[in-house]
Amino acid sequence: MSNLHIDAARLWDALMETAAIGGTPDGGVRRLTLTEEDRQVRNWFKSQCEALGCTVTVDEVGNMFALRAGTDPSALPVAMGSHLDTQPAGGKFDGILGVLAGLEIFRTLADAGCATRRPLLLVNWTNEEGSRFSPAMLGSGVHADVFDRRYADTRVDADGAFFGDALEAIGYRGTIKAGSVKFAAMFELHIEQGPLLERANIDIGVVTGVQGMRWYDLEIGGRQAHAGSTPMDMRQDALTAAAHVILGVERIADEYAGLATVGELTIQNASRNVVPGCVRMTVDLRHPDDSVLDGMEEAMNGLFEASNPSGPIITCRRTWHSPAVRFDPACVAAVAAAAVHGGYSTLEMTSGSGHDSVYVSRIAPTAMIFVPCKDGLSHNPLESSTIGQCTAGAEALMNVVLNVAGLVEAGIHACVDAPVT
Amino acid sequence: MSNLHIDAARLWDALMETAAIGGTPDGGVRRLTLTEEDRQVRNWFKSQCEALGCTVTVDEVGNMFALRAGTDPSALPVAMGSHLDTQPAGGKFDGILGVLAGLEIFRTLADAGCATRRPLLLVNWTNEEGSRFSPAMLGSGVHADVFDRRYADTRVDADGAFFGDALEAIGYRGTIKAGSVKFAAMFELHIEQGPLLERANIDIGVVTGVQGMRWYDLEIGGRQAHAGSTPMDMRQDALTAAAHVILGVERIADEYAGLATVGELTIQNASRNVVPGCVRMTVDLRHPDDSVLDGMEEAMNGLFEASNPSGPIITCRRTWHSPAVRFDPACVAAVAAAAVHGGYSTLEMTSGSGHDSVYVSRIAPTAMIFVPCKDGLSHNPLESSTIGQCTAGAEALMNVVLNVAGLVEAGIHACVDAPVT
Repeated sequence: MSNLHIDAARLWDALMETAAIGGTPDGGVRRLTLTEEDRQVRNWFKSQCEALGCTVTVDEVGNMFALRAGTDPSALPVAMGSHLDTQPAGGKFDGILGVLAGLEIFRTLADAGCATRRPLLLVNWTNEEGSRFSPAMLGSGVHADVFDRRYADTRVDADGAFFGDALEAIGYRGTIKAGSVKFAAMFELHIEQGPLLERANIDIGVVTGVQGMRWYDLEIGGRQAHAGSTPMDMRQDALTAAAHVILGVERIADEYAGLATVGELTIQNASRNVVPGCVRMTVDLRHPDDSVLDGMEEAMNGLFEASNPSGPIITCRRTWHSPAVRFDPACVAAVAAAAVHGGYSTLEMTSGSGHDSVYVSRIAPTAMIFVPCKDGLSHNPLESSTIGQCTAGAEALMNVVLNVAGLVEAGIHACVDAPVT
Repeated sequence: MSNLHIDAARLWDALMETAAIGGTPDGGVRRLTLTEEDRQVRNWFKSQCEALGCTVTVDEVGNMFALRAGTDPSALPVAMGSHLDTQPAGGKFDGILGVLAGLEIFRTLADAGCATRRPLLLVNWTNEEGSRFSPAMLGSGVHADVFDRRYADTRVDADGAFFGDALEAIGYRGTIKAGSVKFAAMFELHIEQGPLLERANIDIGVVTGVQGMRWYDLEIGGRQAHAGSTPMDMRQDALTAAAHVILGVERIADEYAGLATVGELTIQNASRNVVPGCVRMTVDLRHPDDSVLDGMEEAMNGLFEASNPSGPIITCRRTWHSPAVRFDPACVAAVAAAAVHGGYSTLEMTSGSGHDSVYVSRIAPTAMIFVPCKDGLSHNPLESSTIGQCTAGAEALMNVVLNVAGLVEAGIHACVDAPVT
């Protein structure tokens, strides 16, 4: 491994520079995919990479690939990166850190006059967030052949605009075929978006995989009735039935050491003096092990069957699922070694949320690096990581990609190429 | 008491005739207060009463008074009636039966050539429903000096229209001062809007009063967090806290033999993969005894104090209350006697919902008569009572008003005036 160090202040400045593109008065960023703000940050990213001598190509769904040539023209590149789009009320770090850390690594290598055996590839995936065009992780999904390109093009936003038209409108419909850019491995640096690292005071999360996730839509059909004249024992209150489900899935999460969340709940024709007759709600179940998720799902169905047979009727439909992902063990080990080499404390963990790496891992060895974020907050203008936390992540990322790519030429810094332990 | 009988088919025909004004394809009625439909039904009501020789006057908030003269010009009239406005998706009986039964009594007396000592007064109160202009029972409230006339005039509907302007637009701003029409007593016939009479197979509910009602707005402030990366033990989930409150107030209702309803609940910034950070909900508590309601309120506040001190923070604000009402004992006894005289089974009961009689009872001896409605349904196009049930209510109403007003002259029917037993 090398003893190169990134420039912490320069990385931070780049984060703040991009945060101004779509920056909001509350310190957050609103940079929805394929908008004018996305075009601006893409242009900025392209020009910064090209200034460092990289070749930037764009595929047919707008994924951007900045290639820094290696010394071995026949070797597949080592990829890093993430995404530059944000939630409607997003922060300055989610996704962005993973791209800008790669840029900072390019700058560090340029300053040091270092070359790598394998080329390095810095990727900005299109529409990771999925908040303008559903589903999320669309660009990496098309790259990994999870989604068809035409499927992507025909996604529609809330104003009726098509993904394909929006992509062309900002000038980022590339000519190369999605999935045609190949790489030997990919490493994605990201903020944790959870509180575990901060709570344990750990620098680097070594991400071994991504939890399995299942989404359900529930409809609870009771009987709407007058709040003033319907005795309690004659009610079929859909909301009290919902309350039993909310607390029931919470118990299931505790019992199976998984996660359960009811994030949406609406009462049909709600009125403060009407007993709710119909409630619609969602359930989100997660666990790193799909077989445990099976058990959680079964336990949840048991809740519905155990409910009062003369009470409201609960129907449940699974609307989406994402199987648990296990990242490539060699890549995971390389991340751990790189972090330790940098002198950082590490914690093996599972990602609770989806990332581009979920789909990328289907076509190439992949791993992720997490850094702490304040209070676990993300998808929020208050999302925050310190300069020291961002630096630790960028250094770990640099160490792992240089190790895998092979550092072959040193400039002003001494570079030591060592095998992964 | 008399042995007069109303014409059941004529009463039913009148119900169906008015149901066509604002009638909806599903069999319901949409006749919001002070709309074109309300103007039509008011015109119809006025012309029917005038055709029977009544004098119809309108006060400054649109309350309509049809006076049938008595033989004693110095005696105060006996009032009956209810309201002709409906909910947005209302039925054919709520309020309407109470007015049309009065009209049918006028018609029966006219056919029989009967006179009463006291005049009879048939009232159509403005805006009982409160669904276009909040609050409910506005016309009777102004009549009873609960609300100021200017307060009424400045109520605004969802489209920004003022009550006063809407009243003038349909030509029902009367000239007489609200509250200036006096009466000796008032009797209001209404569908139960609950299931008790139907369940017990009883003809007539003798309503002794109206439950006390208290409305609360709750805000539950937890912490919005990522559903995938926030461990269960680090969550401050506002919705699970809400679920505990929903089930807690249900237990309180059972314990105190009262009623508790959470009718509205919204999650701020709800998303299926976000732990809810803020929930707003309502609670409606009811009991016939205000001191028991005090206990229920205290028990509910105890729920909030007992909740996890490091969990979400629950704030509760009482936004409205209506003290329990006890109707005039002599009027209640007169209703019971009149029903028994008609050969009907009776059940003493408390009204679970507000009615114009709540306010009227503040300025005159008042009682109510309930008849069953199918499945307890009301504020619903499916609201339904049978011709027999409506007839029983109208006959009981006729018996009580004739008894209190004094039937002094018989025509083709024999009339027997007897003291209340």
